Amino acid sequence: MQVLNPNWTMTEEDLAKKAFDIAYKREIEALVDSVRRRVGSLNEIDDMWRLHDFLSVKRHEIDGRYDFRISTIIFVFADLVKNGWLDLSELEGLDADKIAKVAALARM
Amino acid sequence: MQVLNPNWTMTEEDLAKKAFDIAYKREIEALVDSVRRRVGSLNEIDDMWRLHDFLSVKRHEIDGRYDFRISTIIFVFADLVKNGWLDLSELEGLDADKIAKVAALARM
Repeated sequence: MQVLNPNWTMTEEDLAKKAFDIAYKREIEALVDSVRRRVGSLNEIDDMWRLHDFLSVKRHEIDGRYDFRISTIIFVFADLVKNGWLDLSELEGLDADKIAKVAALARM
Repeated sequence: MQVLNPNWTMTEEDLAKKAFDIAYKREIEALVDSVRRRVGSLNEIDDMWRLHDFLSVKRHEIDGRYDFRISTIIFVFADLVKNGWLDLSELEGLDADKIAKVAALARM
């Protein structure tokens, strides 16, 4: 029944979705923490606009980064690993070739 | 020495600048409080993007609102009074005609 993604087993797809969700949750939690810290030390209007700029950048990054499509997920994972939101070990269960591709792309 | 703004005395200009600064400080403090409250109840990513949208709107409003030029300050004050950032009583010391103009515009 793997018509659309012939190279991915159902098990791998499930695992990929879980890894993707873990990274997303991790990045969002880090962002919430970071916003709390920034708001804790808000003193002047420039701090507020810096927070606004920071959120603009993060929103753009996160919107761009988290696109779950199996056909491009290798690139998404490479980006997540490169940026520290996912560890290669969290992809364990995918076949070795996929993990090697993620690892190689993450080093680029 | 009132070449540029013949209808404003130096005393009135000083008073206008003080009233303007009071309103600005008041709005910024309210904004900081509001951001702190929102961040206190941040739970999910949508709250974060709502905070971002909120800051986008506020930044646009505040950038547009606080333009201190004596030639247009009557309109700025009317807007500030209308939006609750300045009380007419804080313009006391300006001549009655100016205050009446601000009051009339603030009701429009």
